Amino acid sequence: MKNAAVFLGIDVGGTNLKAGLTDEEGRVLATRKRPLGTFQGAEHFAASLAALARETALAGGVAPETLPYIGIGIPGAVSEGTVRYTCNIPLENVPLERLIRQSLDVPVLLENDANCAAVGEWLYGAGRGRRDFAVITLGTGVGGGFILDGRLYSGGGMVGEVGHMVICQGGVPCTCGRRGCWEMYASATGLIRLTKETMAAHLDSLLHPLARMQGGVDGRTAFEAAQAGDEAALLLCRRYVEYLAAGLTNLANILQPEAIALGGGVSGAPDALLLNPLREILDRECYARHGGRLPRLVKAELGNDAGLLGAAQLGRAI
Amino acid sequence: MKNAAVFLGIDVGGTNLKAGLTDEEGRVLATRKRPLGTFQGAEHFAASLAALARETALAGGVAPETLPYIGIGIPGAVSEGTVRYTCNIPLENVPLERLIRQSLDVPVLLENDANCAAVGEWLYGAGRGRRDFAVITLGTGVGGGFILDGRLYSGGGMVGEVGHMVICQGGVPCTCGRRGCWEMYASATGLIRLTKETMAAHLDSLLHPLARMQGGVDGRTAFEAAQAGDEAALLLCRRYVEYLAAGLTNLANILQPEAIALGGGVSGAPDALLLNPLREILDRECYARHGGRLPRLVKAELGNDAGLLGAAQLGRAI
Repeated sequence: MKNAAVFLGIDVGGTNLKAGLTDEEGRVLATRKRPLGTFQGAEHFAASLAALARETALAGGVAPETLPYIGIGIPGAVSEGTVRYTCNIPLENVPLERLIRQSLDVPVLLENDANCAAVGEWLYGAGRGRRDFAVITLGTGVGGGFILDGRLYSGGGMVGEVGHMVICQGGVPCTCGRRGCWEMYASATGLIRLTKETMAAHLDSLLHPLARMQGGVDGRTAFEAAQAGDEAALLLCRRYVEYLAAGLTNLANILQPEAIALGGGVSGAPDALLLNPLREILDRECYARHGGRLPRLVKAELGNDAGLLGAAQLGRAI
Repeated sequence: MKNAAVFLGIDVGGTNLKAGLTDEEGRVLATRKRPLGTFQGAEHFAASLAALARETALAGGVAPETLPYIGIGIPGAVSEGTVRYTCNIPLENVPLERLIRQSLDVPVLLENDANCAAVGEWLYGAGRGRRDFAVITLGTGVGGGFILDGRLYSGGGMVGEVGHMVICQGGVPCTCGRRGCWEMYASATGLIRLTKETMAAHLDSLLHPLARMQGGVDGRTAFEAAQAGDEAALLLCRRYVEYLAAGLTNLANILQPEAIALGGGVSGAPDALLLNPLREILDRECYARHGGRLPRLVKAELGNDAGLLGAAQLGRAI
């Protein structure tokens, strides 16, 4: 008999596989982690996932075979139980569900990891009670997941490549082959590039001693210098916010979500420098101010746990 | 008793109200049209719609009270039976369903007109059998409607303002208050502006005699001159296609629809100059080429009837 009260999710990250056994309220009953390690083929990868699921279930006192399903977040494109493509693991058109079930015969739900994070925030975090909701993650790139009409919108399995939305036609070349993609400006990587450009142009800026103290420029340098009143950093932050707002307003105009949650490292910046000016631009520029519904811009609440919690609850979201 | 086999749709256009009685296969059994006329208040407008519905139903031999619902496409934002805002009729927060039912007591389904057109194309036109499908209309502006997961995505009632997606940060000022909106480049209006700019720079171009013959520049001038081999017009068409492709690729990356249908006057341009080069760019630039699903770019099939047919079938789409 299947156990209807516990759920198992696995988050496949760049360096680790993290599994969690949760209850319906998103409480974590047991977790296990193992390094991704050197890739030794699809069968071996599937067997690792099955073993990790088994170990985590048992740690929570649950017979692995009674799990309703195993939900897995993959950094790539998936569909119909198959990994179509991933960025950091050499999996292409691998029937992962079938391979896992050779070791542990439980249904497998595969989803893109950004989509899992959106499900997590929707059920337990910044999107609770929303019908149309987006999570935008500002990290190395810009990722996105959408809950539309009260369900995860999964599209072709790699939906939400919002980072590869051109906002500056003919602009900075992107790794994806286009020019002027949003993530070249709005990601932490983009912010770091902007920071370095500003430093090169303003040798007297506080950005320099700050970067030296921190051992280099990161996604916080600009905000910290701006908080200390550095003029060049203040202008830089404003410019970053304008780029970020451009893409957010685009998404708001295209999909009109009730709320958009910002996640990732950069979203931890002070409200006065990030969330407040972003909200000002959205309120002024969103088309929905004409009688429609202006989206509420909020911070994601679950941090790195969103993906795992969402993966565990995929059965409710799709 | 309600009649389950016939459906009534009304398309509220800029100059006319058009009503159609249809069957489930989208065959039109009766149509009626009346001029929008001078606006004489919300009650009068609602009574006109009710009278038009009544007249059309009777013309098709159907008792108006037996209609399952009246589906109405509105050029603006709607939600919960209320018109929130329209562009060309002074309706703001008008409870249109309630007002119509004072004259004809049948449920009323209101939807944005671009969304109705998407439903029409999905059921009877270029989107038949698709689960995720977008219609992009190139007219005075750029409009859009989305079928996602096999349902109309209606969002906050004014979803799909895809024309107000910035593709050129800081670019041409748009009527919406932003700069660089897609519709400033990709609409028929945008194409006409680009054509005039090209004419000013190329006094020997074939565009000049063509425009004189046609009594002015319109959305066909550039394509006709390009077909005749005019170099400046060929470059202009290529530039227009690049702008159009930028927004289409953005939408494909964000939502990964199976197919995108182009409608509106401009979509009638020769394939060699429009659809073929657009497809080349999408195939090259869509992120989904990495193991995902590349969207099929097609022409909308139903022309001006899409909105009416879709309005009549709103009950199946929402």
